[in-house]
Amino acid sequence: MKIITSEQFYTEKNDSSDIQTSEEQLDSSVLEIIKQVRADKDAALFRYTEKFDQVELDQLLVSEQEFIEARNLVDSEFIEAINDAKENIREFHQAQKEQTWLIENEKGILLGQKVTPLEKVGVYIPGGKAAYPSSILMNVIPAQIAGVKEIVITTPPQKDGKINPYVLVTADEIGIKTIYKIGGAQAVAALAYGTETVDKVDKIVGPGNAFVARAKKWVYGDVAIDMIAGPSEICVVADETAPPSYVAADLLSQAEHDESASAICVTTSKEVADKVKAEVQKQTEQLERKAIIQSSIEQNGRIVIAKNKEDAFDVVNKIAPEHLQLMIQNPTESMQLIKHAGAIFLGNYSPEPLGDYFAGPNHTLPTSGTARFASPLGVYDFVKKSSIIQYSEDALLSASDKITKLANTEGLTAHANSISIRKDNLHA
Amino acid sequence: MKIITSEQFYTEKNDSSDIQTSEEQLDSSVLEIIKQVRADKDAALFRYTEKFDQVELDQLLVSEQEFIEARNLVDSEFIEAINDAKENIREFHQAQKEQTWLIENEKGILLGQKVTPLEKVGVYIPGGKAAYPSSILMNVIPAQIAGVKEIVITTPPQKDGKINPYVLVTADEIGIKTIYKIGGAQAVAALAYGTETVDKVDKIVGPGNAFVARAKKWVYGDVAIDMIAGPSEICVVADETAPPSYVAADLLSQAEHDESASAICVTTSKEVADKVKAEVQKQTEQLERKAIIQSSIEQNGRIVIAKNKEDAFDVVNKIAPEHLQLMIQNPTESMQLIKHAGAIFLGNYSPEPLGDYFAGPNHTLPTSGTARFASPLGVYDFVKKSSIIQYSEDALLSASDKITKLANTEGLTAHANSISIRKDNLHA
Repeated sequence: MKIITSEQFYTEKNDSSDIQTSEEQLDSSVLEIIKQVRADKDAALFRYTEKFDQVELDQLLVSEQEFIEARNLVDSEFIEAINDAKENIREFHQAQKEQTWLIENEKGILLGQKVTPLEKVGVYIPGGKAAYPSSILMNVIPAQIAGVKEIVITTPPQKDGKINPYVLVTADEIGIKTIYKIGGAQAVAALAYGTETVDKVDKIVGPGNAFVARAKKWVYGDVAIDMIAGPSEICVVADETAPPSYVAADLLSQAEHDESASAICVTTSKEVADKVKAEVQKQTEQLERKAIIQSSIEQNGRIVIAKNKEDAFDVVNKIAPEHLQLMIQNPTESMQLIKHAGAIFLGNYSPEPLGDYFAGPNHTLPTSGTARFASPLGVYDFVKKSSIIQYSEDALLSASDKITKLANTEGLTAHANSISIRKDNLHA
Repeated sequence: MKIITSEQFYTEKNDSSDIQTSEEQLDSSVLEIIKQVRADKDAALFRYTEKFDQVELDQLLVSEQEFIEARNLVDSEFIEAINDAKENIREFHQAQKEQTWLIENEKGILLGQKVTPLEKVGVYIPGGKAAYPSSILMNVIPAQIAGVKEIVITTPPQKDGKINPYVLVTADEIGIKTIYKIGGAQAVAALAYGTETVDKVDKIVGPGNAFVARAKKWVYGDVAIDMIAGPSEICVVADETAPPSYVAADLLSQAEHDESASAICVTTSKEVADKVKAEVQKQTEQLERKAIIQSSIEQNGRIVIAKNKEDAFDVVNKIAPEHLQLMIQNPTESMQLIKHAGAIFLGNYSPEPLGDYFAGPNHTLPTSGTARFASPLGVYDFVKKSSIIQYSEDALLSASDKITKLANTEGLTAHANSISIRKDNLHA
């Protein structure tokens, strides 16, 4: 793992700013898939599932029988862990609930904001060989707390046409019964525009590969989406009080995601840097996903030596990391120096996997520096607001000249007419 | 204005659902503009301003002198109206402010949500011949209340190279001094990626034409955007207590925006339908923007006769209108029937232009049925959230088996290692 100075970090960071507005080849595939799903609907979904997932399905929906079979394949220890996590996630997200409010004043003016849950939400869960039960909890629970009535899941089938049993049981545990065996851009298209089997939804959420992410960008506007997820990152700020073995383990937990994941340690101590580096080397050797980890650490792993605390947090804010761990003395006192981070983990006993699986806050976080402007997935993503305006006759009358003045300045004379017709014909 | 039944409405609505994922010709122009701005920066901005706005500029930034000149061109009545509107908009949006929260429990667990304002926001204001001071207030004030430090405006110049004085004075009145004379897709590209003169921002908001809307869709993800605005609509639910002249005036105020705007009246009374239709005809004749209005009303204007109140609100929810006026007896009692609407106006003295200019709630609203999933622009658009997680040693220890179980189920063994290394080496 390379040790660099903060100056070197800034130079690297600027060189690598390679934002892609258009990805032509990916786009043309994704657009073709969307077009076919909109035209041929279910038939296109069966075709693409055969092509990409290499399985010929009889039906797109998971059957009741499949839920029962899955139960028999899953151990009780798993179910217990899922239920504990579920409770923590529910408790945290309850605190995000927003209420409708109204303000009435003595002049006969009532203003407010009505909060209404979305009606239909589709959750994409990656699949194939791997299972991501935690993604189900993190994406479904906030929608349930918001009050969304129809929540469906879509996930690519295994080659045997089944869905991973841990996924099915987790969905079952939180009351989701509608699961489609559809993956990739075709799943996004089906949720966005509807087919014979799949109902059009109002919002699509959940992680996915490049096809899924790009399809979400294309359907955005016709339907809401959570975010366009990019490679994942962790940034650990460490001082002498941070056990180097802990720091290294946390960096590696992020690096194992995939080769484009990035793990960065920021410290003001050369000694800490050296120790963390040594631990990273040592621990990597013993990890199952060693090949991915090595490649990720080599390409994107860095230990940055900052000049001082302020410089360290400048580096953090430049990264705007998805996950930020403060393994320093009195971490709470440094919170004010953080401008951008998806989730902030404080102290030596709050490693990122605690947040991924268990603590309660959402693990769907803004990646690739988008923490500059985006938030974790939350209950707020599953409601929409409507403004409420009620003026009495008197209240409108006393505002009428100002409103017509502004409307006329903008050249919108029919707007002015809507006010003046009332002024001129009270109690019409 | 056509009078139709609710059945006819549903048939029309389904026939016309013509969602465009890709607009090839527009996209290729917009992508070329983005590419050139990213490559040539300021030079490209000068070139496009000459091409599209037909003016050769010396500098992109409005000068102090231009602000002073603008002051002399604007009447005090306008300034007074703007300041009254400003106060109302501030007061309403103050109620949207969110606070950081923390929850600590006796087990040594601290969880929370940190709310931080965005750093840099760019506001696009349409320009050329027309002036939209109200858009400045509605887009800038929520950002200011959120605590955004850098707010800049970009707007296309007139052919004389100047910016409309009402726009400049309004910006000045709310403390915005950085105004760029840049319009169209090139303005969006400059804000998204930065040039020598224009700083890259975190979020781009504000209305614009098709080029602006499409450019926003393309840069979305690299930068945040408010929404992709489509044609605007109003829906008025009217019963016998609604003065037909008021209803007609409000429908026409929406129709004057442009030919694709839509104005729909829903009523259970044939008599109300006939009276509104007659008033629409009568008033249209006297309005300045008669040609636009006639075209809009003919194409998209409808009076829908519903079977009963429930049917009327089904029509409303099918439209998911940007603006919804309830001109019926006891409108508040019907609020629960509304599933989707950008803004809800209650009673006979709350016409849409009151909301456009004055009452306080935002006039940037979800259009074209996106009220199904989107909200008015608000203070919440200018902050982002970060989750906070702190576990004590004991708290982590007691959760450790559950976390490693879940990590191992997902095959993420380095995640499990990050937990078990702590369990096995406490106080490392």
